[in-house]
Amino acid sequence: MSPFFLSLMLSAAAAPPHPAEAYARAHQGQIVRELVEALSIPDVAADRPNIRRKAEFLRGRFAARGFEVEILETAGNPLVFARMGAADASRTLLLYAHYDGQPVDPSGWKQESPFKPILRNGKMDDGAQEISGLGALDRYEDDWRIYGRSASDDTSPIIAILAAIDAMKATKTMPTWNIKVILDGEEEAGSPSLVPAISLYRDKLAADLMLILDGPIHPTLRPTLVFGARGIVTAAITVYGPKMGLHSGHYGNWVPNPGMRLAQLLASMKDEDGRVKVAGYYDGITFSEEDRKALASVPDDEAALIQLFSIGSVDKVGASLQEALQYPSLNVRGLSSSYVGALARTIIPDSATAAIDLRLVKESAARDIEAKLLKHIESQGYFVVQERDATEAERLSHRRTVRVDFSGETNAYRTDPGDPNAVKLTRALRNAFGVDPIRIRTSGGTVPIAPFIDALGFPAVSVPTVNFDNNQHGENENVRLGHFFRSVGIIAAAMQIEN
Amino acid sequence: MSPFFLSLMLSAAAAPPHPAEAYARAHQGQIVRELVEALSIPDVAADRPNIRRKAEFLRGRFAARGFEVEILETAGNPLVFARMGAADASRTLLLYAHYDGQPVDPSGWKQESPFKPILRNGKMDDGAQEISGLGALDRYEDDWRIYGRSASDDTSPIIAILAAIDAMKATKTMPTWNIKVILDGEEEAGSPSLVPAISLYRDKLAADLMLILDGPIHPTLRPTLVFGARGIVTAAITVYGPKMGLHSGHYGNWVPNPGMRLAQLLASMKDEDGRVKVAGYYDGITFSEEDRKALASVPDDEAALIQLFSIGSVDKVGASLQEALQYPSLNVRGLSSSYVGALARTIIPDSATAAIDLRLVKESAARDIEAKLLKHIESQGYFVVQERDATEAERLSHRRTVRVDFSGETNAYRTDPGDPNAVKLTRALRNAFGVDPIRIRTSGGTVPIAPFIDALGFPAVSVPTVNFDNNQHGENENVRLGHFFRSVGIIAAAMQIEN
Repeated sequence: MSPFFLSLMLSAAAAPPHPAEAYARAHQGQIVRELVEALSIPDVAADRPNIRRKAEFLRGRFAARGFEVEILETAGNPLVFARMGAADASRTLLLYAHYDGQPVDPSGWKQESPFKPILRNGKMDDGAQEISGLGALDRYEDDWRIYGRSASDDTSPIIAILAAIDAMKATKTMPTWNIKVILDGEEEAGSPSLVPAISLYRDKLAADLMLILDGPIHPTLRPTLVFGARGIVTAAITVYGPKMGLHSGHYGNWVPNPGMRLAQLLASMKDEDGRVKVAGYYDGITFSEEDRKALASVPDDEAALIQLFSIGSVDKVGASLQEALQYPSLNVRGLSSSYVGALARTIIPDSATAAIDLRLVKESAARDIEAKLLKHIESQGYFVVQERDATEAERLSHRRTVRVDFSGETNAYRTDPGDPNAVKLTRALRNAFGVDPIRIRTSGGTVPIAPFIDALGFPAVSVPTVNFDNNQHGENENVRLGHFFRSVGIIAAAMQIEN
Repeated sequence: MSPFFLSLMLSAAAAPPHPAEAYARAHQGQIVRELVEALSIPDVAADRPNIRRKAEFLRGRFAARGFEVEILETAGNPLVFARMGAADASRTLLLYAHYDGQPVDPSGWKQESPFKPILRNGKMDDGAQEISGLGALDRYEDDWRIYGRSASDDTSPIIAILAAIDAMKATKTMPTWNIKVILDGEEEAGSPSLVPAISLYRDKLAADLMLILDGPIHPTLRPTLVFGARGIVTAAITVYGPKMGLHSGHYGNWVPNPGMRLAQLLASMKDEDGRVKVAGYYDGITFSEEDRKALASVPDDEAALIQLFSIGSVDKVGASLQEALQYPSLNVRGLSSSYVGALARTIIPDSATAAIDLRLVKESAARDIEAKLLKHIESQGYFVVQERDATEAERLSHRRTVRVDFSGETNAYRTDPGDPNAVKLTRALRNAFGVDPIRIRTSGGTVPIAPFIDALGFPAVSVPTVNFDNNQHGENENVRLGHFFRSVGIIAAAMQIEN
């Protein structure tokens, strides 16, 4: 933690905790145990038997708190739907979270299994050691972390809802609005069943404001509201080489190399400073004075991030991290061609593939960005086939041939911070914590929820709570327990929004 | 086979076969059986118990032909050394081959194991089917192929030596020179023990001319002599990203992507037509009129290769394939960064690696080319560390940091075609086959033998015999049996070089 953040964080921590957070800290043994139980169920969306086990587990836990709970069937994984009425409430708050986790490659995890959570006395990268007794202890330090898939993304917010309800019952400060909870079992697979579920369950899902409980709170631990999220398209770009791998000696210098051609194609897409060179990529993006003020008010400590990530320079898409996130991105998330390392062989490979993700903003719809990228690839001399392999005749008759597969199209969303219910939420957090929440115009990550928000027809705001250095989407995902306990207070405060 | 080659090949096949080839065809059941036995022993250089089994197997087979055989121990895998004196011989021919094969990834093979050879009634890519009875049949068609690791590279030439000796004994036309055979067990690992073996075994290895039995004969099946071979350096180039994989949404557009930077670095190394842009890479390369004539006399059918490989264009390093091979190359043999496909995750990876091979020619020594490549990488704004990971302090204090690991340095060699013993060899093949052998100035592939040739101090010429479409170094390596039978005649003819 940088001195800058540390001072802000200490001042946040110095304030007396929210009563619900105080309750969570007093009952931490039981709350952590419930989280550990949830994390012990494998929850990759494709693992349908286990994901259903997790849905049933959560159904039971919500029911135990007095929620009326249903498993809503879809063509994919089930949704868990829970509701609890509030006396005299005229409005309804819909809490969204997801109970699936990212796919795992267990070989990269420094523990027996991503689904056997372990406790460390700090951050693994800083040399923290495993502590035994996870789930059986009564006291946990704030800096301790639980390592396991979906620890942060997105199981701990679900357990925090349960703890918030327990706390509110204990402190006799029940939610002011009717509460509904919808738990998605396919978020990391793009939430394919969410929009179709609306036509089946529209009345159940009706509400006045949706809170999306996902993502990291600002490093200062100041309550954070996020009014938009970038969308995403993923693309696989495969450049063809010779039909079969060829001896690099016998044909190198004569048969074109697909890895080199892929490199040249990728290099054509971005300049040295990370700005996308695809024509029209940034079209329509402008900022009002107020936008710029809001972006500048986010207390990011970029120097600390640079130090944390050990990077020697940053891309220059925007003047700051917050500004950079208001633009669509083009990220090479994976490269593959034949082998590197011990299995490398001296061949001209038959193909080379880049896995790309394009993060979208409100101004860049998925289909638009796809069309612009395709046009760019064609401008580099390529014949493009989509969603299928090129035939030999096509490969022979074009100087360069590439296969492009787009998938996972999810548009960005952005809610107006001036929406009356959004203003009430902002006020609820300010009143509870004595400080303006940090307001993020568009967060960088994607919640595959833009079409869901559109179709539901009421505004949505994210309330992120977990630590930002949680290795989300990578190996050794973790949640810091101080953040987890604090999240109980934040979620409870949001549920006390003025009626 | 193109009409062009087919006509040349038929005319080659129409001539009466060499007596040793005729013998091989008459005894094909036994000869193929011996090849199958040899291919059934796993022979990756790193698999030391099995490679020794193969050495012992070969020791026995050469001894059975009356060779005096020894296993020459080295710091690595053993060399198999065999010799057989010739009456009235004043000169000695040293035959070199290697008994190890390339590393394998069994998942890419269309058979139970690369070390359980199978027979197909043609080329697998053309839809040929497996035929049972491999090793137990008496007759095999010329177009049938044996699929298995090292079938072509380089076990079949070894078995062809044995068959040639059998044939010469049966036809009472024994070798005119003393024959020595040296079989390398680490060629695919760079032959690290070959030069050190000279100091231990110099007298044993003394000879007047070395024949290197490795690589593919010209597609016309015309006897082929190769006077040089490109050398090689392999390099692993790893561009660093953030210290840990980061969520591509939260940081994409701000934290630089190592895959994109690697792509930009690779793209800086070559132009659109495959010419290397590294300064000085082609220094010193010139061709005499005679060189150009010799290069032009090689009857390559480039159109047929283009068709075979399904490529829509070729690189423009030289005016022809033969000319291209007289230049050093820069081949991206592998790319890796995080994942593509089902395991792909939306992260900014922590690194991206390219595995490169640089093929060398006589004018480009390994250390020179390495220095030029490093200088080029630095010119692209990189801080370079070699043979170790960069520290966090280094990554923080330089805009871009890259790790480079060079290995496998083997220089090129080129023998003067006017050397008197090389001239005798050329004449022996012309006399035996009634046609000028095809003479290759420098072949594209590497035999890690340049320093061995230098240290031995006598000239070396390659006599390649296997089919060029053998998937050498890839999956589903194979040897065409027509080529195998013909190789027996070619090797016998070479052993009847004038005294």
